[in-house]
Amino acid sequence: MNNSAATTTQYDANAKSNSVNGVDVDQINHVIESITADTSFGQFQFRARNRWVNGGLNRSQIKEFHAGGREDGTRSKPFTLDADEPQLVAGNDSAPNSMEYVLHALVSCMTGTLVYHAAVRDIAITSVSSHIEGDMDVRGLLGMADDVRKGFNHVRVTMRVDSDADAETLTELALYSPVYDIVSKSLPVEFSLEKI
Amino acid sequence: MNNSAATTTQYDANAKSNSVNGVDVDQINHVIESITADTSFGQFQFRARNRWVNGGLNRSQIKEFHAGGREDGTRSKPFTLDADEPQLVAGNDSAPNSMEYVLHALVSCMTGTLVYHAAVRDIAITSVSSHIEGDMDVRGLLGMADDVRKGFNHVRVTMRVDSDADAETLTELALYSPVYDIVSKSLPVEFSLEKI
Repeated sequence: MNNSAATTTQYDANAKSNSVNGVDVDQINHVIESITADTSFGQFQFRARNRWVNGGLNRSQIKEFHAGGREDGTRSKPFTLDADEPQLVAGNDSAPNSMEYVLHALVSCMTGTLVYHAAVRDIAITSVSSHIEGDMDVRGLLGMADDVRKGFNHVRVTMRVDSDADAETLTELALYSPVYDIVSKSLPVEFSLEKI
Repeated sequence: MNNSAATTTQYDANAKSNSVNGVDVDQINHVIESITADTSFGQFQFRARNRWVNGGLNRSQIKEFHAGGREDGTRSKPFTLDADEPQLVAGNDSAPNSMEYVLHALVSCMTGTLVYHAAVRDIAITSVSSHIEGDMDVRGLLGMADDVRKGFNHVRVTMRVDSDADAETLTELALYSPVYDIVSKSLPVEFSLEKI
């Protein structure tokens, strides 16, 4: 994917179909070419708004984002995501909790990244199925032990992929995942709280 | 929350209600006491299974988890979460993408953590509303620039809280968030891929 012109030529030559793994490769190459011409095309910003409902329940609305040099105009309505807590920790268990959303974000990102990178390289993927688990010692969250971290202390992802490509190549493609980067590496979060 | 006995006494003495901010504080104190008696009670594990559907669409199922020294037996059916991509990047935009799930995980966790920690300290919260945004330069994800990180390079959270407590205290409580810990600090992810 480092040479977008060559990649484009490869797929333009395949006149029968520009879709690999259900991914429109021409469209991805269009994005790559646009970024090559103007890096601001590749500056994306995603956003969410959240409102606390009651107890363990809160709700995010997700709609606007910036990508391809402009504010998105294709989404007509927001996605709504609830977060709640299981009964053991005084929630109503009406939705996954935030830790489970992290796991979904990570495994969905590694899957999508694998499928897209494979598509651009013309590697057919037949199936991908994964299991992910995260361990935490909740003494950190509860403030019961300063030497225990608050979040997961261990995350394991196992992925089964049906493809002709070898496991090493497939692993390399999955590890382009942005959420893998976010979770595995440090990322300063700016936080400002206004009391009203 | 470091002295669970004292906290419990405080809330046992309030016979009218054990609920603050809609959180059953007696239940949270029961969890704290159980962990104090046996740290294995506080070893939690959350999990998800994911299956690629087609193109940018994949789907997680979330049900089983380990908490309080046992496998959970309260959830009768799984939560299902889809991830998809916007049209610009060749998706059908049927669901939020993985980056947006990270933002939801982070803001929902900071909100829930604030509300729970406030409840245990008998701090009433009237409302919490937040905005979160994450910037990324997709050249990292696309393999177009080695010096550009793949995930967000910047995340900003702004939170408005209606409460009698001061902003400094409220900020301190929100920063107990496990997902804030995961995103802001590094966390090695074990990844194994099996080709079938």
